[in-house]
Amino acid sequence: MHRSTIGAISIDFPSRDVAAATAFWSAALGRSSRQGTRFPEFQVLEGRFGPMEGIVQDVGQTPPRVHLDLHTDDTEAEVARLIALGAREVARHDGWVVLEDPAGMPFCVCGVEGDDPVLEGAAAWDA
Amino acid sequence: MHRSTIGAISIDFPSRDVAAATAFWSAALGRSSRQGTRFPEFQVLEGRFGPMEGIVQDVGQTPPRVHLDLHTDDTEAEVARLIALGAREVARHDGWVVLEDPAGMPFCVCGVEGDDPVLEGAAAWDA
Repeated sequence: MHRSTIGAISIDFPSRDVAAATAFWSAALGRSSRQGTRFPEFQVLEGRFGPMEGIVQDVGQTPPRVHLDLHTDDTEAEVARLIALGAREVARHDGWVVLEDPAGMPFCVCGVEGDDPVLEGAAAWDA
Repeated sequence: MHRSTIGAISIDFPSRDVAAATAFWSAALGRSSRQGTRFPEFQVLEGRFGPMEGIVQDVGQTPPRVHLDLHTDDTEAEVARLIALGAREVARHDGWVVLEDPAGMPFCVCGVEGDDPVLEGAAAWDA
């Protein structure tokens, strides 16, 4: 059995727009932001949005977009489950896997500890 | 004083992909879906994601994307606040306004009643 849920909303911008975009979304949502420590390409918005984190990500040359992060206590089982549903693995990073849904939209699967509060209310899967 | 918060995550697909995308995201997130009654171009995912709704939207010819809906008890005040922060109004619909952030990413401001539970924990604005 493993669990998964939407764990983060990532608001992504090309590098040239990240400072302005972080200022805008911080003010728009009324949350301060701080640079990620382990991954400095992320600006983390203060607090949570329900169970979810809000982050602003520098995506280099990629145009602005929003993507969803699924948080899970078993990354490999979750990636396999999603691939069986029609997703495609695109890239592996330290702590998360990038996938595309069947229409080609990117999203990520991120591993968290089993006692992470984000998993309260998460869906539970047998495989 | 008015309030606003992220109230919905909308997973948007071109018309040709909506049926497959609704099936994928419904299974990926473990939520059943139902067609919107007032707006049949939306498939509403069962339950909430924290305080937020999850919806799959048919966006015609537009490529796949995710967009955020800000829910507020004063649409005009919220749109004016966001335009003062650098957003741009793009279109008006019955119940919501489409904006672009300073980098050109679309999002919406949607009016809800002042007693809507989504506004619990929302940011409060004086103007």
